[in-house]
Amino acid sequence: MFFHKQELQYNSVPDQPDAVYARKLQEVLGGQYGEITVAMQYSFQAWNIHIPGKYRDLLYGIASEEFGHVEMLAKMIVQLLEKSPLGITEKDVQSDPTVAAVVGGTDVQHAIVAGAGARPVDSMGNPWSGAYITASGNLLADFTSNANAEMQGRLQVARLYHMTDDHGVRDLLSFLLARDTMHQNQWIASARELQEEGSEQLPVPSNFPRSKEYTAVSHQYINFSDGPDAAKGSWAEGPTPDGEGEFTYLDGPDTSAPMPAPTHPDSRIFGTTELPNTVEKAAGTVQDKLHKE
Amino acid sequence: MFFHKQELQYNSVPDQPDAVYARKLQEVLGGQYGEITVAMQYSFQAWNIHIPGKYRDLLYGIASEEFGHVEMLAKMIVQLLEKSPLGITEKDVQSDPTVAAVVGGTDVQHAIVAGAGARPVDSMGNPWSGAYITASGNLLADFTSNANAEMQGRLQVARLYHMTDDHGVRDLLSFLLARDTMHQNQWIASARELQEEGSEQLPVPSNFPRSKEYTAVSHQYINFSDGPDAAKGSWAEGPTPDGEGEFTYLDGPDTSAPMPAPTHPDSRIFGTTELPNTVEKAAGTVQDKLHKE
Amino acid sequence: MFFHKQELQYNSVPDQPDAVYARKLQEVLGGQYGEITVAMQYSFQAWNIHIPGKYRDLLYGIASEEFGHVEMLAKMIVQLLEKSPLGITEKDVQSDPTVAAVVGGTDVQHAIVAGAGARPVDSMGNPWSGAYITASGNLLADFTSNANAEMQGRLQVARLYHMTDDHGVRDLLSFLLARDTMHQNQWIASARELQEEGSEQLPVPSNFPRSKEYTAVSHQYINFSDGPDAAKGSWAEGPTPDGEGEFTYLDGPDTSAPMPAPTHPDSRIFGTTELPNTVEKAAGTVQDKLHKE
Amino acid sequence: MFFHKQELQYNSVPDQPDAVYARKLQEVLGGQYGEITVAMQYSFQAWNIHIPGKYRDLLYGIASEEFGHVEMLAKMIVQLLEKSPLGITEKDVQSDPTVAAVVGGTDVQHAIVAGAGARPVDSMGNPWSGAYITASGNLLADFTSNANAEMQGRLQVARLYHMTDDHGVRDLLSFLLARDTMHQNQWIASARELQEEGSEQLPVPSNFPRSKEYTAVSHQYINFSDGPDAAKGSWAEGPTPDGEGEFTYLDGPDTSAPMPAPTHPDSRIFGTTELPNTVEKAAGTVQDKLHKE
Amino acid sequence: MFFHKQELQYNSVPDQPDAVYARKLQEVLGGQYGEITVAMQYSFQAWNIHIPGKYRDLLYGIASEEFGHVEMLAKMIVQLLEKSPLGITEKDVQSDPTVAAVVGGTDVQHAIVAGAGARPVDSMGNPWSGAYITASGNLLADFTSNANAEMQGRLQVARLYHMTDDHGVRDLLSFLLARDTMHQNQWIASARELQEEGSEQLPVPSNFPRSKEYTAVSHQYINFSDGPDAAKGSWAEGPTPDGEGEFTYLDGPDTSAPMPAPTHPDSRIFGTTELPNTVEKAAGTVQDKLHKE
Amino acid sequence: MFFHKQELQYNSVPDQPDAVYARKLQEVLGGQYGEITVAMQYSFQAWNIHIPGKYRDLLYGIASEEFGHVEMLAKMIVQLLEKSPLGITEKDVQSDPTVAAVVGGTDVQHAIVAGAGARPVDSMGNPWSGAYITASGNLLADFTSNANAEMQGRLQVARLYHMTDDHGVRDLLSFLLARDTMHQNQWIASARELQEEGSEQLPVPSNFPRSKEYTAVSHQYINFSDGPDAAKGSWAEGPTPDGEGEFTYLDGPDTSAPMPAPTHPDSRIFGTTELPNTVEKAAGTVQDKLHKE
Repeated sequence: MFFHKQELQYNSVPDQPDAVYARKLQEVLGGQYGEITVAMQYSFQAWNIHIPGKYRDLLYGIASEEFGHVEMLAKMIVQLLEKSPLGITEKDVQSDPTVAAVVGGTDVQHAIVAGAGARPVDSMGNPWSGAYITASGNLLADFTSNANAEMQGRLQVARLYHMTDDHGVRDLLSFLLARDTMHQNQWIASARELQEEGSEQLPVPSNFPRSKEYTAVSHQYINFSDGPDAAKGSWAEGPTPDGEGEFTYLDGPDTSAPMPAPTHPDSRIFGTTELPNTVEKAAGTVQDKLHKE
Repeated sequence: MFFHKQELQYNSVPDQPDAVYARKLQEVLGGQYGEITVAMQYSFQAWNIHIPGKYRDLLYGIASEEFGHVEMLAKMIVQLLEKSPLGITEKDVQSDPTVAAVVGGTDVQHAIVAGAGARPVDSMGNPWSGAYITASGNLLADFTSNANAEMQGRLQVARLYHMTDDHGVRDLLSFLLARDTMHQNQWIASARELQEEGSEQLPVPSNFPRSKEYTAVSHQYINFSDGPDAAKGSWAEGPTPDGEGEFTYLDGPDTSAPMPAPTHPDSRIFGTTELPNTVEKAAGTVQDKLHKE
Repeated sequence: MFFHKQELQYNSVPDQPDAVYARKLQEVLGGQYGEITVAMQYSFQAWNIHIPGKYRDLLYGIASEEFGHVEMLAKMIVQLLEKSPLGITEKDVQSDPTVAAVVGGTDVQHAIVAGAGARPVDSMGNPWSGAYITASGNLLADFTSNANAEMQGRLQVARLYHMTDDHGVRDLLSFLLARDTMHQNQWIASARELQEEGSEQLPVPSNFPRSKEYTAVSHQYINFSDGPDAAKGSWAEGPTPDGEGEFTYLDGPDTSAPMPAPTHPDSRIFGTTELPNTVEKAAGTVQDKLHKE
Repeated sequence: MFFHKQELQYNSVPDQPDAVYARKLQEVLGGQYGEITVAMQYSFQAWNIHIPGKYRDLLYGIASEEFGHVEMLAKMIVQLLEKSPLGITEKDVQSDPTVAAVVGGTDVQHAIVAGAGARPVDSMGNPWSGAYITASGNLLADFTSNANAEMQGRLQVARLYHMTDDHGVRDLLSFLLARDTMHQNQWIASARELQEEGSEQLPVPSNFPRSKEYTAVSHQYINFSDGPDAAKGSWAEGPTPDGEGEFTYLDGPDTSAPMPAPTHPDSRIFGTTELPNTVEKAAGTVQDKLHKE
Repeated sequence: MFFHKQELQYNSVPDQPDAVYARKLQEVLGGQYGEITVAMQYSFQAWNIHIPGKYRDLLYGIASEEFGHVEMLAKMIVQLLEKSPLGITEKDVQSDPTVAAVVGGTDVQHAIVAGAGARPVDSMGNPWSGAYITASGNLLADFTSNANAEMQGRLQVARLYHMTDDHGVRDLLSFLLARDTMHQNQWIASARELQEEGSEQLPVPSNFPRSKEYTAVSHQYINFSDGPDAAKGSWAEGPTPDGEGEFTYLDGPDTSAPMPAPTHPDSRIFGTTELPNTVEKAAGTVQDKLHKE
Repeated sequence: MFFHKQELQYNSVPDQPDAVYARKLQEVLGGQYGEITVAMQYSFQAWNIHIPGKYRDLLYGIASEEFGHVEMLAKMIVQLLEKSPLGITEKDVQSDPTVAAVVGGTDVQHAIVAGAGARPVDSMGNPWSGAYITASGNLLADFTSNANAEMQGRLQVARLYHMTDDHGVRDLLSFLLARDTMHQNQWIASARELQEEGSEQLPVPSNFPRSKEYTAVSHQYINFSDGPDAAKGSWAEGPTPDGEGEFTYLDGPDTSAPMPAPTHPDSRIFGTTELPNTVEKAAGTVQDKLHKE
């Protein structure tokens, strides 16, 4: 169960309206790596988990905080939009380049659809999608996904920080940056703990029997491009992170198989084949009769 | 530039047709973590990179291999579909549960749309989407995303392995499992190398000035759920992976801010406000006059 | 802020696994009118509202309950999936039609992607979309949208009730049906209260000046089809619900305007026009010169 | 069958081009609540209806009018686009803020893709989606959905009215406002008629047996947030609109159930469990053998 | 304006219910090349056209027929669904493989969402999308798109013809096949007429000045794969269809350019660069100061 | 297999940065008819083909070139973005309309999400979708689709040519225009060759038996609009392109069928029917008992 309290976790009041910035802020609310994504991702991971106890509690504890971050961003956006100009008929557009930029750069659905309200979309107006989240039931994979989400999220907030000089907005962003720092640290720590405990190891999934893998190519870097520096990294020589072997480097593939012959499905699929594809137009051909069941 | 060779990297010939399995295999061709995703993700990361040399070469080298994996899966799918029954009018459906399952469980667009061909969709028929990929320009974030993609991908292939006993299919999957093992190892190695070289460190992005972050909450685990075991992990006490401090644990937030007052945008947004919202229906009210520009 | 408690609002334990039904249940979790939709819709309405007090409190109070309903459905789905067969290689498929139906009718991503976990998708596998929600800032419009959402939602739950005879599932559905009954009643009551208080009236938005509307056709039913019974309803004669006039009935339109002439945009748009569209292929035509800036 | 006449229902000629406004107008052509949505929604409701006669005739009669509204908007948009500047290479951009705003605020696909033509998209460029419509077969639910669609639609047109001062555009909008007024009135009247006739009543669907609903919570407002004013409305005390009881108010839930234990699906799903998840890397473990069928 | 008549263009009554086939038929109603697509595509082309007269009349004349085809398919689908079983609790599923296939192969939203009604989706449940249509304003391009749409459409109907033996369904399909034959012929004829009149020629757009094209490679087949038979077709030697030259064949590219150097955007984008990316964590570094405006 | 070479096919270096133009260029990279579309479309056609030899080699040869075009556009976009201003806090926005337009007209995800990188989206930010491609297995249909794709593509490039005066950009576009010229010619030549060889003819699919088509209407133009000029084209009289007959013209349909009666699905679908829809609210009605299994 979720309970709501009519307070925010941190101050979210801007100095002044800024409709263009409100649009940009939609990215970290409703984008691929916005707060809706992490709130939903951690929730589904908690619901799908196969282990009781600490990992589940960790997921629930952060998931619920993230819903509150969605709320802080939504409240910031509505305040940034509160006094936004309605559009190009406003007289001052005609003489002020800044206003022109504002008019050009807004999410026009903010006004037309939401009445100066926030929306579950990204900064280009794409609706938030359930396809953004990951909850596979394999915790090492999922915590790695979470670490990535927090890295991408903090990166986007950092970029947004330098696109405004509003003190109220920056204040909120400084808080979100700190929480993303924390959550990056947490998912990395939890991924390590999984491996130290032996619950999951590299390669994921570690409980799939290695004997069923074609291990001859499991540690071989096959370079399909012509950049020679690819051979110079720790991914091309030395021990592999899974502790199972040594990296080797190949300048192109050494396995190959012939391209399978083209398929010939049922003739009633009506694909084009080697045979003349015309049937007698009048009644009575053999092929036609075949088609009558 | 890309060049194509009419060979496959590995054997991709099934023992026998299986239209239901062909549908399932679409997941690792055109799903969120399918081969199209990794091929496109690594390509865009290579095009967007800010560093010449080894990291760029690494990206190009793997990206191009992945396009070949798309091809192997597509060729496998068309062979699995080659002899698939057209549908419920086939007589044997009426007496054979296996055929009934086949008819029920196929991607019907395989026959109707693609003529027993492969498609750029996942196992539920959702078209592949550009929203699946990540290419932020920050390499530690992106390599973490890549590690996750290979983990999710190998996990899905492992699950698919046990959903068939066709030796030809399993042979292909054993090869893909091995390549996913390799690529997991490579992205983890490259993420480490970035950190060891100091190009990028935790928290990502490491070159954002920490002084602009509200660091009071940067290492604080705030539990917004009631699971006490969340306090027991290495994410709640001890040193943080970024080497910047110690985790602390809070049983709920200790910061809060009042919910901002509702906004009151321009009256021509026609939202509902505290004031009576009816205007005089005849001409001539004050508000009406105001609206005439 | 949102807080989570590791309890459910109601019992959500099925008698036995049923992977086909788990797929169907996804509709009321992640479909157009599923619980994610109402949870997000009421939340955004609360964040976008222009009035403090009772309406805002109402929205927050129900929104937060709905997140808990998402959770109950997710937990039900994972239990229904727990023992689902992996696929067609299971021997019993070959002799049991019920298992064949199960294999044919499941969401295959439940196994391949989510590891027998719940997903933010509908019963056909479409990801939940932010485009499902409505939060316009006009409360009479939005509460009508909410009433519709609860009606569609209860209708879907009622249909699902008769697609299973699992007592545990039906028990949960009987609870959801009751809550949908309550919420239908609440949104209808709140829409009435808005009108009685005069905050908003028909037609929505009531504060748009009627003098700017072409009122000659504001109460005229113009039948663009040939069904004569359309004239027999209370929508074709008698007083209009907005209290502003009487319905009239027209057997087809009595206004018309000529189709505007085709447009002729800039020639560099390269559309096809009345003029010969070929240019001299050698250098030096007039049109060509025009294009050199 | 549908028949087309090369006339419009009303005048749709703008005073002058305005490419930014053309983009905004796309919202009511191809957006969530645009004319394509209502035309398709009423058509599908007519095709799916279970009753002959007046309700079906009503649906067909309005559906067909709405296709004409799509056409009027498309014709308006192409005229607004006819003389739009091609882009930033136009010299006057450099000195005129209004032109700068125009260049910044257009739908660039209007020029690049459609050649100064209209498109089936909303004002942010999202393609119209079949997921926007509702046609459930339950008429009280669907007419409520229709009332909402007309309210949201009229609200958006009203907002757009004040974003231009072009007399031709406003003339068209005044006509659309009037038709939306009419259609709001009609769907409300038809929803009432359904209830008065007893065809359908609250709660929807009224023919689902109430005995199968957990009626103890059917009229109980459970406040999951902390706003006390939620208790002050007609949705928290007094008779319920369905005539079945009295509203009661609860300050939080009084039912609860324990969170079900985490699930443990088939081990070949390769989720992370309590058990050590590593297998012997060499051949021959018990678990490995188990996996060999 | 569009007018509706409550008749169908052709008989659309099936012999008996078939819920699985109803799902398949959705492809040609709401799929990429279904009837909604052609109805909308031809309508938008008519609205966007730059020429009055015969081409516009042609577009309107067919567009309107196609809306009637949408209707015929919708009516067929609702009849096929009318007696479909509700699901797996029906007793007969347990003993009848055909019913098992039915249960497994239906669009479950047909029952849950639409109440045995038709939906604007394809055969895998993807909602119809405005992204399916083409209306560029260039008639030779668009008529070629139309010819393709009718080819793909007739192909899909032909495939569907052999997936049923219901006489009523086949009767409807035989009518649709004939209309698709007609429309293929019409779009090919109109594309020819455009070229014969000189309104538009190859290459499209023909009014773009050829002098601005890098014509050295305009008729050169550059084979980026290793299949030698590519050189054997009429696309590799002989006169080009545009009448401008002769095809030539190249076994790989003979132009090339160096890969541009990696870009180095503003440091506040926080991408990873060659430089050490760590800042002094305490206050006061040069870079940090730079970031303070 | 695909191999990558770190060179481009042609020069792709712009004179100067232009973030607004970078956004527009996304259309031909990731739009409906962008380079990703043709690369993927030709690849899937090659994988799905039923004929070995020249057609397959043709498809592979061009598909692989197109992936290189994706790369050229991506590299151009990153260079155009390299020095783009971060946003409205830059001082010069306040006094320069050109900069205002830039700020207003950019794809804001270029900066926030991709760090001044290219993205797999169109010019309005919609992610590339697998639904853009066509690969039906019928080569005449598919080559017609390919011809259309190259026409739409060249048209868009031609439009984009006149939206910039950057010599480097125009240089790249002149190359792409030439390749689109070539590919238009090739698909038209290959479609002709298919017909001359008799592999496929009009109407597509030509191997469907004409005797199963309702040929009475196969060559009849039925005008559902009121434009009389529709009768004046070569699509309304004279021989049909398929060589099977003569066009005839009808001023409206001469076939019709009654609208089928509304359907009455299972009562547990809870649709609204003619019967009173209320059940006894207390226990014990007949209908209620019926529903208890």
